Amino acid sequence: MPDSKNAYSAAVRNLLELFGQLPGIGSRSAERIVFHLLNGNRDSAVQLAGAIVAVKDQVRHCSICQHLTENDPCDICTNPQRDHGIICVVEQPKDVYQIEATGAYNGVYHVLLGRLAPLDGMGPETLTTDALVRRVLETDANGQTVVREVILATNPTMDGDATALLVQQLLAATGVGVSRLARGLPAGAQIEHSNRAILHDALTGRVKM
Amino acid sequence: MPDSKNAYSAAVRNLLELFGQLPGIGSRSAERIVFHLLNGNRDSAVQLAGAIVAVKDQVRHCSICQHLTENDPCDICTNPQRDHGIICVVEQPKDVYQIEATGAYNGVYHVLLGRLAPLDGMGPETLTTDALVRRVLETDANGQTVVREVILATNPTMDGDATALLVQQLLAATGVGVSRLARGLPAGAQIEHSNRAILHDALTGRVKM
Repeated sequence: MPDSKNAYSAAVRNLLELFGQLPGIGSRSAERIVFHLLNGNRDSAVQLAGAIVAVKDQVRHCSICQHLTENDPCDICTNPQRDHGIICVVEQPKDVYQIEATGAYNGVYHVLLGRLAPLDGMGPETLTTDALVRRVLETDANGQTVVREVILATNPTMDGDATALLVQQLLAATGVGVSRLARGLPAGAQIEHSNRAILHDALTGRVKM
Repeated sequence: MPDSKNAYSAAVRNLLELFGQLPGIGSRSAERIVFHLLNGNRDSAVQLAGAIVAVKDQVRHCSICQHLTENDPCDICTNPQRDHGIICVVEQPKDVYQIEATGAYNGVYHVLLGRLAPLDGMGPETLTTDALVRRVLETDANGQTVVREVILATNPTMDGDATALLVQQLLAATGVGVSRLARGLPAGAQIEHSNRAILHDALTGRVKM
């Protein structure tokens, strides 16, 4: 109901506009949310407002891996139980959460905070690759490098592949082992409904049984 | 990604949970929004938080018609250009905005702040019908009643119809004219895709040409 906006009072209109700017929230959803807040009690609205500001104030990027954290360095970087010899390189903090959820990885991370996307104005200088190279070159008390392997876990997209290629090139001189995530048919998929790119990956990456 | 929640820091988890409680926002949308806020600047997060609290602090129900307003009485009730002889009775403030958006109505409103829904624990006592009856009985300086007509604009649903029937009965003794919104095929619909209830209304409510 785009035309009904003018009937709203200023505070409602302002909140509708701000909610409408959030991703995935159209004007209809914004209205539902605002009416929900108007119908609810003041305390829960204050709680939501407080949580929004708290997230901005308490969450920052880890100074080592750039993941989101409330403690710096983050809990993963300071965890002695994790294998600090393997660094998994991802585009976004979101990706760290996803990989953590699998429970299949016990190394540490490095978040690039972006991807190579020249058309969107994101060049190599916007990524945290310098810090990654420094981490890979770091040595322990005996002068030995700590990092044995870097896993490139960028997205299986054009941008992600270009980003992975860039990181690989930047790491070439360090001599560290570089791998990338396996690509192929997604678990649970049906070949009938797969597309050409997926099948191409599955065929070229086929594994001996 | 339901299992990834534990990987989030406390502030993020708290905000995810609060956003997830809003209508129409699943855990996936909540994550998109929280990451959007984390990636954005602090000012816009503070602005959103402030707007949420402002809406609760500045918006209240009009003491005459119960519509949402920042001024009491509301701009509609105090507008001398509007016809105070016609009251349109709606369930929710949302409905006022919708009717205002049509530009087809110049009377005033009365918001019931609910509907008859005994199964949901909403009985007649939860509605603002007493205030409506008082408004209908009000007289001007000459002892004449002001209100000539009450339009029942409850939803065309079981609950809405029951609510309209209740209001009609409560107003019967006042002698005021009572009408209800026309019911039939929605503009732009195709008969092929209409359901039985809509066609029933359209047939029984048919109009001479």
